Amino acid sequence: MVAVMCRSFIVAAALALSGAPLPGHAQETDPLPSWNDGTVKANIIDFVTRVTTEGSSDYVPEQDRIATFDNDGTLWVEKPLYTQFVFVVDRVKAVSNEHPEWKTKEPFKSALDGNTEKLLTYGEQGAMVLITATHTGMTTVEFNEIVSQWLKTARHPRFDRPYTDLTYKPMIELLDYLRANGFRTFIVSGGGIAFMRAYTEQSYGIFPWQVVGSSGKTEFRMWDSSPTLVKLPDLLFFDDGPGKAEGINHYVGRQPIFAFGNSIGDKEMLEWTANCKGVCFMGLVHHDDAQREYAYGPDSDVGRFPVALMEQAMASGWNVVSMKNDWNVIFSWGKPEAASPAE
Amino acid sequence: MVAVMCRSFIVAAALALSGAPLPGHAQETDPLPSWNDGTVKANIIDFVTRVTTEGSSDYVPEQDRIATFDNDGTLWVEKPLYTQFVFVVDRVKAVSNEHPEWKTKEPFKSALDGNTEKLLTYGEQGAMVLITATHTGMTTVEFNEIVSQWLKTARHPRFDRPYTDLTYKPMIELLDYLRANGFRTFIVSGGGIAFMRAYTEQSYGIFPWQVVGSSGKTEFRMWDSSPTLVKLPDLLFFDDGPGKAEGINHYVGRQPIFAFGNSIGDKEMLEWTANCKGVCFMGLVHHDDAQREYAYGPDSDVGRFPVALMEQAMASGWNVVSMKNDWNVIFSWGKPEAASPAE
Repeated sequence: MVAVMCRSFIVAAALALSGAPLPGHAQETDPLPSWNDGTVKANIIDFVTRVTTEGSSDYVPEQDRIATFDNDGTLWVEKPLYTQFVFVVDRVKAVSNEHPEWKTKEPFKSALDGNTEKLLTYGEQGAMVLITATHTGMTTVEFNEIVSQWLKTARHPRFDRPYTDLTYKPMIELLDYLRANGFRTFIVSGGGIAFMRAYTEQSYGIFPWQVVGSSGKTEFRMWDSSPTLVKLPDLLFFDDGPGKAEGINHYVGRQPIFAFGNSIGDKEMLEWTANCKGVCFMGLVHHDDAQREYAYGPDSDVGRFPVALMEQAMASGWNVVSMKNDWNVIFSWGKPEAASPAE
Repeated sequence: MVAVMCRSFIVAAALALSGAPLPGHAQETDPLPSWNDGTVKANIIDFVTRVTTEGSSDYVPEQDRIATFDNDGTLWVEKPLYTQFVFVVDRVKAVSNEHPEWKTKEPFKSALDGNTEKLLTYGEQGAMVLITATHTGMTTVEFNEIVSQWLKTARHPRFDRPYTDLTYKPMIELLDYLRANGFRTFIVSGGGIAFMRAYTEQSYGIFPWQVVGSSGKTEFRMWDSSPTLVKLPDLLFFDDGPGKAEGINHYVGRQPIFAFGNSIGDKEMLEWTANCKGVCFMGLVHHDDAQREYAYGPDSDVGRFPVALMEQAMASGWNVVSMKNDWNVIFSWGKPEAASPAE
């Protein structure tokens, strides 16, 4: 692993002062206008320039330019709750008429009562019960339609906008910049693969076959005389922590040279990426902007970013993005008046 | 489902007689020179022209042009044994020194004795025992290297050439033709995903992330102080029969509009593809050329193509390729003197 750090910032600064164009794929305009000038932005541009400059010892052929991104908290908002979790609760409410027993049965009762605090006490096991009840027993086409419809109407409690508006503009620019430089961009998330695939193409320009996530089993079955796929209540793959490296191997089949996350669940993906032969880039988004988005980290229920991970990032030369300092805008829809900042 | 059949042949013939260029993406030269003029070739060209002609009611945007191909017997030779099975037997021999007990323990004994007939009597269960013994316990990088080395030295018993020479030239042309027309091409095989990924990029121009196959679990682990992925002896996914439709959903996340197979294991993939909204193309390679390749079908141990499947193909308007009549050349290395034809 070759860390691309301060040196690159100095190179970029020197080039800027000299008026010389950036080497390699010269950028006539700033490819990352939502990023403030600083170490991380300079490191990104330096890294991309190195691996795309033919003849350079750091050159990487296009088919090996694999970039993987976590989703929740890295590409879009994950506070106060993971979007998929909000969907699950809304879905429990939407179909509760068919399940009168849920009124008294946990964790359904807490979901119906909107008692998020109590709901979270049921942990992963409780979440799995709700996911199984709301994500299975229908065809894959029906589920996609349910998610698509929900995304059209659901609103984030603080920003009062559709969740698909809450993608980070600087990261969308980064995805575009990488793809313009021959990278393939993949999402690698602990979230459900079928849930994500309902919007990743429109929101990120990432096709379904470049989405890696947790998934349940499906079964090929004749349904109303038509061949179709039915979603079953059995877990096939859990794509978090070590599962992210395993998931990339299963789905992508190639080690990334560029990876971005924001929490402890991304640690192994970053470690695996860092174990590269040539140059590689590891990044973590740090949520330190309560005014424009949220500020959270070590003690958060969602997107936990423990002190040990920050220390590992610093020691390893990984790039930690300060949302507050590195991004001049957070969302594509501009700079709204901040509502009540959480945490 | 709209079958594209004889009508398209008549259209193509009429166009050829009129001297008019083919509509849509006009082909200055024949895109499929290894295919003899006939119904299947005409249907392929007609289908591709329809879905790529903007303004046509059959137009399909690029992101929905998904084409899936079986591998063994569809893209390369599968007789007298699946290539991966030959690899397994060779691998058992190569590491047998470390396992003296294999000399007397089945199915290892039959593998070491080269007694293929007896080996096949142990069926899928026996194959799984051998696959587990030869495909697991090493890192993913080590396994890839083992397969790559084997492919360099192993020779097909009849054609006396590396297995990677035994890809079908007409199918390589078809893959190229589809990609040139905005299709994404995927392999969907019952074979092992890690085995295939060692050569699909070079042989077919298909990247690892566009290969769907059977797979075992892996585990992220520190190995000699480096983060790495170790292959475990547990099945994750079996990609055959109904599993092919399920596998396409898991990996690709989108229903194909073009699918090609050659055996009963491809039935559900073709049925699912045929359940399309617009036009779609379903194809089956029929091995009827003992002189240049092999002739087999209903009673074959590998690549079984039962009478019922042929009847279903005929009734459903699927395209059945006669290797003998539809292909003027089989392999990229020309037209060798036929060795002893099998079956």
